Amino acid sequence: MLINPDRLRNSMEEMARIGATPGGGVHRLTLSDADKEARDLFAARAREAGLRLTVDEMGNMFARRPGTEEGAPPAVAGSHLDSVPHGGRFDGSLGVLGALEVVRSLNDKKIATRRPIEVVNWTNEEGPRFPPAMLGSGVFAGAYGRDFAYQRRDAEGRRFVDELERIGYRGEAPCRPRPLGCYLELHIEQGPVLESEGVEIGVVEGIVAIAWLRVAMKGERDHAGPTPMAMRRDALVGAARAISAIREIPGKLDPDLVATVGEIFVSPNAINVIPGRVAFSVDFRHSREALMQKAHERVLEAVQGAARREGLEVEVERIGGSSPLAFHPEAVAAVEEACRRAGYSSRRMWSAAGHDARYAAELGPGAMIFTPCVAGKSHTEEERATWEDAARGCEVLALALLALAGRAG
Amino acid sequence: MLINPDRLRNSMEEMARIGATPGGGVHRLTLSDADKEARDLFAARAREAGLRLTVDEMGNMFARRPGTEEGAPPAVAGSHLDSVPHGGRFDGSLGVLGALEVVRSLNDKKIATRRPIEVVNWTNEEGPRFPPAMLGSGVFAGAYGRDFAYQRRDAEGRRFVDELERIGYRGEAPCRPRPLGCYLELHIEQGPVLESEGVEIGVVEGIVAIAWLRVAMKGERDHAGPTPMAMRRDALVGAARAISAIREIPGKLDPDLVATVGEIFVSPNAINVIPGRVAFSVDFRHSREALMQKAHERVLEAVQGAARREGLEVEVERIGGSSPLAFHPEAVAAVEEACRRAGYSSRRMWSAAGHDARYAAELGPGAMIFTPCVAGKSHTEEERATWEDAARGCEVLALALLALAGRAG
Repeated sequence: MLINPDRLRNSMEEMARIGATPGGGVHRLTLSDADKEARDLFAARAREAGLRLTVDEMGNMFARRPGTEEGAPPAVAGSHLDSVPHGGRFDGSLGVLGALEVVRSLNDKKIATRRPIEVVNWTNEEGPRFPPAMLGSGVFAGAYGRDFAYQRRDAEGRRFVDELERIGYRGEAPCRPRPLGCYLELHIEQGPVLESEGVEIGVVEGIVAIAWLRVAMKGERDHAGPTPMAMRRDALVGAARAISAIREIPGKLDPDLVATVGEIFVSPNAINVIPGRVAFSVDFRHSREALMQKAHERVLEAVQGAARREGLEVEVERIGGSSPLAFHPEAVAAVEEACRRAGYSSRRMWSAAGHDARYAAELGPGAMIFTPCVAGKSHTEEERATWEDAARGCEVLALALLALAGRAG
Repeated sequence: MLINPDRLRNSMEEMARIGATPGGGVHRLTLSDADKEARDLFAARAREAGLRLTVDEMGNMFARRPGTEEGAPPAVAGSHLDSVPHGGRFDGSLGVLGALEVVRSLNDKKIATRRPIEVVNWTNEEGPRFPPAMLGSGVFAGAYGRDFAYQRRDAEGRRFVDELERIGYRGEAPCRPRPLGCYLELHIEQGPVLESEGVEIGVVEGIVAIAWLRVAMKGERDHAGPTPMAMRRDALVGAARAISAIREIPGKLDPDLVATVGEIFVSPNAINVIPGRVAFSVDFRHSREALMQKAHERVLEAVQGAARREGLEVEVERIGGSSPLAFHPEAVAAVEEACRRAGYSSRRMWSAAGHDARYAAELGPGAMIFTPCVAGKSHTEEERATWEDAARGCEVLALALLALAGRAG
């Protein structure tokens, strides 16, 4: 192996102690004290590896290893060190520390690259504290303005910029688009596909489109006893039928479409009162914009059909989403070739979760490398991956990054 | 007319000022300051009508008009002066003040009755502050022990007995079963049947059985993106299918059956997370015990079928309910005869809501008189009845009570 699996494990375990939770996960919200501690550790380890650290005005951290062509756009690899509340120890950290391990291994073996290599830790990938998610990479790619990001507030009213300042990571370097030689991100799959198929590496071809809808249904609040069934306009019955129908859409439209109703609010939500109002969310995702359009129409049909049948008023609002991003064929091919050379089984797949690669890959050929995770669990303390799988992912990252950075001499 | 419609209206309007809400309803939780004020007003008006007031140890208030046979079990009529939070001005008050109006009219016309007449205001009919509902009449009928009632606590931890004492309505008279000559309760229908059929009076034959279930479904909490539809165990999809199926049961089983899912709790209830756990309530009601049994089986089938299809674990718990109570044919016939004599259209019906008559009618021949309410609304500030309908209901109460109390001389 090019990389050192034991050193990777040690650095992952070292990082997992920061913000560690009793349940075996980490609680490391962006710009918290734990985030600062994680950043400090990363900075120290990067400097020990001889890297030069730059922090930009969004707190994004770039640890640079020189190339033989210092003017060439850098080969960048990384992810994020922040976590969701009570999240897992692999989500994000594996991508940052995996990239650091790659650099250490190149150092060990005295391998020089044509392009400089930068290991990046993006600020606020997760987003629960300061929505929206992927804020650091989003500003970097020009999707959000810096001042928009600075003014975000957490639930206690604290501003992003003040917290960034407080933990000492408001850097000097401007955060704005610059060309990247490539961008690679190693990450756990966060889904069950690789594990269930027994495949070692996911070669990620792109990040799906995501649409978020808010559906509000209004019926008639009434007493659950004396109101005959035929005279009811029950908002929860309407919502239930819509939710059941939405569940069937992917099976009829496309097996890769996913559609989820995750959130529901019922009013008055009392055992003996017919619900007068219900609001629920719809999240649906697919890699093709045309199919997203069709799915949107089917969701509207399902919702409107259910509302009509129960005599409900209905409103549907789009509250978020993003278009699909297909990764660069060259970068995807480099990952696939790395799997072949390392002798790991692989399959191509799309990421149905958002990642910093969504933005970073707009600035240069990008791709992602997925490793299996136990039972497909993430965003929970139970999130696990095997050290063998983590090491294989890191090895693929090393080989692909070396290919894209260009071995010098 | 035997009764005086203007006086009835005035006394209803006077009572509606106590705990009046900006939305046109009343907020008069049991044992609150507003409840005390309503009780004081009722006591004053009852005394002015020459009645002798007794308050029992549950705070139930009995205002008695002597009969020519003082030893005979009294003819009792009444209801309750407490309200749900932000409730309506007719629910309960019409039954108490209607009975008071009957007594005033008998006084006006110097009509004596064989049985004494008692106008009753039951404590805590509604129950949201101190569950369960119908607590005063329930202790009176022996369904609950007095000390069980005393130890009930509200959401702030205050005990029923302390609040009863505080407002000065912990009386001396024992609260225990005693024979009643009859029990009549005038009430708004709380449903849309009379209004929609254009019928003036509902002759209530009984109070339906009520069953309350709590259904808990457990699936697998997962990320809404990377989890393929085929690998999901979505607790909300299971619940939605169950709720849809429960909605269909009455149509297949019996048109008088009602079934409602009013309350649902989803965990974690986040837009991009597949729900791992859902709990929801089922409330179903019918007048026949055998049909309730069948309905219970169908609900279980619906729930278990939905759980099986989505691979969920399911638990169903019965959390409350009551058996049906058929009113006494003699009392029901007296109400029907009163409608005929007054020239009002009427129809027989069951009450699908609980009332103090559920308990009081266990101690003597009981029945209820329903008046139409606008759009079937109750337990809301929008609750309305016309003064004409209220007066007709009161007239029927007068004629029926007079028949059951026995006109003397």
